[in-house]
Amino acid sequence: MSEAKSNENSSVKVKCLVQQCLSAKLQVVLPDMEKNIEPEFVQIGRGVVFFVCFMKDATEADVDKLVRSVLGAKLSEPDNDPSKHIPILDIPGDILIIPQATLGGKIKGKVFQYHYNVNKDLGFELYSKFIELCKKYAREHPVWSKNSNLKIVNGTYGIRQVYSTETNGPYLHLIEF
Amino acid sequence: MSEAKSNENSSVKVKCLVQQCLSAKLQVVLPDMEKNIEPEFVQIGRGVVFFVCFMKDATEADVDKLVRSVLGAKLSEPDNDPSKHIPILDIPGDILIIPQATLGGKIKGKVFQYHYNVNKDLGFELYSKFIELCKKYAREHPVWSKNSNLKIVNGTYGIRQVYSTETNGPYLHLIEF
Repeated sequence: MSEAKSNENSSVKVKCLVQQCLSAKLQVVLPDMEKNIEPEFVQIGRGVVFFVCFMKDATEADVDKLVRSVLGAKLSEPDNDPSKHIPILDIPGDILIIPQATLGGKIKGKVFQYHYNVNKDLGFELYSKFIELCKKYAREHPVWSKNSNLKIVNGTYGIRQVYSTETNGPYLHLIEF
Repeated sequence: MSEAKSNENSSVKVKCLVQQCLSAKLQVVLPDMEKNIEPEFVQIGRGVVFFVCFMKDATEADVDKLVRSVLGAKLSEPDNDPSKHIPILDIPGDILIIPQATLGGKIKGKVFQYHYNVNKDLGFELYSKFIELCKKYAREHPVWSKNSNLKIVNGTYGIRQVYSTETNGPYLHLIEF
């Protein structure tokens, strides 16, 4: 049974955890006192956070499908009707993209293993593509593109994701395939 | 292919998303001005947040197995050695438990469906059991139980989980079976 499960999971190629937020802040440059490097942050207001993870065999076509899915998903609450949910670009709201390879881990005993995660180089390419496509589809979106104060920002691939957020309910959803 | 996947997923009975935090705060009583009800919050310091979701066919035995797994998982960083990870009770740190049924959703088109989620009554029982067992195993733990300033707090089942957090890296991991 558990072996069958791990085979199932190995077929997942992409994962995105979607969190709603009122605000979120992420460190994108870690400080290094010896090298005189100051920390840098990105910040968003009301919007969504995408925690993204790519597994082995993920392709650019999968990234495109994933971006369309997370941008199209009806998960965000319009101000005028909290009983309803609509896509983030229709709200329209900010987007923070965070690489989170740990989401690909599978626990074995007490330790997580990451055997099914993509390698770092391809992971970086796919992550960059994810960001590029989010920005492209947002720019092409009739509602989102009309609001010049909105933003899409992202974390730095491969570093610690020092992160804080305030929510009116994170309303966490996982999209994976 | 996609049908096979949805069958696979329907066999998952419990899910817990584990997030590391420096602090976290959760509303446990929603305000109601008409009824003169003030909001109430719980708060933790350095520790973990467990977002918990139960699916159909989940049993109390599954809850026990899940609690042992999330408490035993080596995911928290000791102060004296950030390269290492050990279980939260060995840190020892605080625990915030949040019911998050939305984690059981599966996207269909643009909309999430929750067909595989447990029903509300059984979900409440299993959630209560999860909290009870976390507290029990923490009290029995040789390191955690010696620190009287530590706490395990939880969200209110069935309400909106108004939540904020600060992290030194959320280090998100999903345990599900």
